[in-house]
Amino acid sequence: MNRTTYIERIRYVVERRDSWQGRTFDDFVFGMILLSLFTFTLRTIPGLSGQTQSFLHWVEVITVVLFTFEYCLRCFVALKRSKYVFSFFGIIDLLAILPFYLMLFGFGYIDGLILRVVRVLRIFRIIRLFRYNQAVDRLQRAVVIVKEEIIMFAVLSLILIYLAAAGIWYFESAVQPDKFGSVLDGLWWAVVTLTTVGYGDTYPVTGGGRIFTFLLLMIGIGVIAIPPGIIASALSKARAEQDREQS
Amino acid sequence: MNRTTYIERIRYVVERRDSWQGRTFDDFVFGMILLSLFTFTLRTIPGLSGQTQSFLHWVEVITVVLFTFEYCLRCFVALKRSKYVFSFFGIIDLLAILPFYLMLFGFGYIDGLILRVVRVLRIFRIIRLFRYNQAVDRLQRAVVIVKEEIIMFAVLSLILIYLAAAGIWYFESAVQPDKFGSVLDGLWWAVVTLTTVGYGDTYPVTGGGRIFTFLLLMIGIGVIAIPPGIIASALSKARAEQDREQS
Amino acid sequence: MNRTTYIERIRYVVERRDSWQGRTFDDFVFGMILLSLFTFTLRTIPGLSGQTQSFLHWVEVITVVLFTFEYCLRCFVALKRSKYVFSFFGIIDLLAILPFYLMLFGFGYIDGLILRVVRVLRIFRIIRLFRYNQAVDRLQRAVVIVKEEIIMFAVLSLILIYLAAAGIWYFESAVQPDKFGSVLDGLWWAVVTLTTVGYGDTYPVTGGGRIFTFLLLMIGIGVIAIPPGIIASALSKARAEQDREQS
Amino acid sequence: MNRTTYIERIRYVVERRDSWQGRTFDDFVFGMILLSLFTFTLRTIPGLSGQTQSFLHWVEVITVVLFTFEYCLRCFVALKRSKYVFSFFGIIDLLAILPFYLMLFGFGYIDGLILRVVRVLRIFRIIRLFRYNQAVDRLQRAVVIVKEEIIMFAVLSLILIYLAAAGIWYFESAVQPDKFGSVLDGLWWAVVTLTTVGYGDTYPVTGGGRIFTFLLLMIGIGVIAIPPGIIASALSKARAEQDREQS
Repeated sequence: MNRTTYIERIRYVVERRDSWQGRTFDDFVFGMILLSLFTFTLRTIPGLSGQTQSFLHWVEVITVVLFTFEYCLRCFVALKRSKYVFSFFGIIDLLAILPFYLMLFGFGYIDGLILRVVRVLRIFRIIRLFRYNQAVDRLQRAVVIVKEEIIMFAVLSLILIYLAAAGIWYFESAVQPDKFGSVLDGLWWAVVTLTTVGYGDTYPVTGGGRIFTFLLLMIGIGVIAIPPGIIASALSKARAEQDREQS
Repeated sequence: MNRTTYIERIRYVVERRDSWQGRTFDDFVFGMILLSLFTFTLRTIPGLSGQTQSFLHWVEVITVVLFTFEYCLRCFVALKRSKYVFSFFGIIDLLAILPFYLMLFGFGYIDGLILRVVRVLRIFRIIRLFRYNQAVDRLQRAVVIVKEEIIMFAVLSLILIYLAAAGIWYFESAVQPDKFGSVLDGLWWAVVTLTTVGYGDTYPVTGGGRIFTFLLLMIGIGVIAIPPGIIASALSKARAEQDREQS
Repeated sequence: MNRTTYIERIRYVVERRDSWQGRTFDDFVFGMILLSLFTFTLRTIPGLSGQTQSFLHWVEVITVVLFTFEYCLRCFVALKRSKYVFSFFGIIDLLAILPFYLMLFGFGYIDGLILRVVRVLRIFRIIRLFRYNQAVDRLQRAVVIVKEEIIMFAVLSLILIYLAAAGIWYFESAVQPDKFGSVLDGLWWAVVTLTTVGYGDTYPVTGGGRIFTFLLLMIGIGVIAIPPGIIASALSKARAEQDREQS
Repeated sequence: MNRTTYIERIRYVVERRDSWQGRTFDDFVFGMILLSLFTFTLRTIPGLSGQTQSFLHWVEVITVVLFTFEYCLRCFVALKRSKYVFSFFGIIDLLAILPFYLMLFGFGYIDGLILRVVRVLRIFRIIRLFRYNQAVDRLQRAVVIVKEEIIMFAVLSLILIYLAAAGIWYFESAVQPDKFGSVLDGLWWAVVTLTTVGYGDTYPVTGGGRIFTFLLLMIGIGVIAIPPGIIASALSKARAEQDREQS
């Protein structure tokens, strides 16, 4: 068996799920991603004992070493190396291991803020889970069908949020200067209200502000709630298309 | 009339709704379930008088005795006894009466926590109401049609919730260490925000956290709100299929 | 012109909108309903001056006199008197004027509570607005198409709300006995949470309660949000049916 | 090249996007609108330094001068001047520049309130962005298809909000006179609750009020959530119509 055949066999395991070896490799990487996310989450809990921190640190070291090995393997077996390295998942794979090595070689200790930034970058590992999900292609198809409508409603939403922010600032700034001091505060209120989250940290108290909120919600709820319905009906259309193609 | 015919006649009453006897039996059991749920609810109210507690206790004893009789009857008339006992509703029927007998024979008094666990188990009786609902099969059909989409959106939701949790922890942990101390706190915030419940117990106060919340909601509301639309359109498809089959 | 023709002519004006007289009659009654609702609303504002109260009282007297005249007219011109009197709108028309006469003859002064009950009954006048809306029939058609699904989801919602109430009571009652004292308190929390209103008056604080809320919302939001989608798609089906019938 | 040809050439640039000059003109105006909205937002932040205020003021002067030039240009090249001046966007264009000149000539200094009113009017510039969005026509088409349903649900929503307001006032006014003093307060609660925003500033505390809220939400959530679904399905119908026309 020559070298090329050997590489091809590894590529078959690493890049595809057709064999039991391929599925095992995939599932192992998948488990490692979940484990690394789990340790990332636990390490943010304040007041952990030194022993626990040390244990979580070593779990992280092991996952990063395995991710590094996997990254090198994928580079090695890729038909075109540069294509993998600069692909979406190639970059994500690198970002998932880079922070560890940056900290190892002292770059992370420059500044507490940078340390935290690079630690957060690690959660991008979660995006790699998508590699294992074929159904995403179907969603992409649906999004393409209704791309124009989604852009239109996104623009409409932004305009509505801005108008809402300026309006509520006009009505409430005099009475609640600490909560609606500027249109920027109004923007926060507009986002929280039009998405119907409604934390209750800021809300109108004047009669004018309340009537304005009423009129805004009568129109606004619709604008925000229509896009999910559009995508849902596009997904059923995408399924119909797929069925037609396959039959 | 021999014994087999006699059992068959009881089975006809217990398991089917074709005769008025069967419907009466079903409706009586249904009423008993509602009564037992009602007494369970009332007994949790603190500060009840001894007389009321005693009365509710005896109502419960009666319902449990009747449920026990019903359970034995169903075991007795079942074509294959083991099939009923290990079926979903067979287990539920047993769980609905078991806590009472465990407490009667002293097992419930071991620990206050166990007592409460077994009391809560009783509410599973409510699931038995489903036995009387034929339309559930239609929903199951719709769920099968769009199973893949639902799994995809469930996975997308989980990823989004995790990214949201890590993001808000990054932005808010320095300013609100008591509310966003770890990514676990962020997860609670992410669930409450992306479902648009918005209790208002935790919310971002920094500029970065608010902009992050805005971007998150623009994408997230859609991801959470699409699945109901998918199931709704699948239900209308399931009805069309059913109509075609029946005609 | 004999008496019958005279009654028929009035009936044509009172019951239909084909002539300009009929439309004027309808619009006048419509305006009176809005006026009476407006005065009802204003009279609930505490601290009104005696003059204002007196003015609002006289506006109410005039509207009630006109409604009484209208009620008598409808009785008089109805083809079958008893059919109108015992019809839905006949009862509403009577309920809209009855409280005034009950209070006039002293019955309202028996008790402050009764007074308030009968005053609130007046708002049922608003339901009379539906008489003027033809499109409601279309909605009724859509509701008939998906009646079974709506009942199923209503039942599912009730079961889910009850399970949620019992679950949250189990997790939170020990830590927050004042807010989750009984399953009844849990029911209020379940309604506010599953409808995504989320006032923030009660919310889980324990880890178990939060994980339970997360799992509940993942399933529950769907159950609550599906029925509107079902009715929306049924309405488009109802329109298609109507178009087919008319062409 | 005579005068008419010259005007026609400018009109081609100003009113259409067919040439690169037209697109550049459009994009430049678009950028100016965004810049003026940005400065409007920043100027509302309290406690800005004199230097920053002065800088933002001059940016505003420049944008207004450019908008004035654009307005004159559009008047000049319009085929029928009066048609542009009294068109929707003609009025908006004038309203976007008028406040500045009113203030310049001292009218804005009459009263602080008027000053704020005219400043808020400037945000109507944002509506001009719609001129550049072709997909809006598609939404208008969908809205026309389901106009009747939307009006019906708007009327239903208003009736429901009023009934909710009167109901909650009846149940809560005695216990919470400061929060549910009149039906007007009830209206605010009804809007915030039925749209599921749920700020948490007012909520029922009595048993009767909570049961009323539960029944209201079971019906009300549906009424409010159906219109977005109707428009979503109408949009997919509008697209199908458009495709049929184009093929």
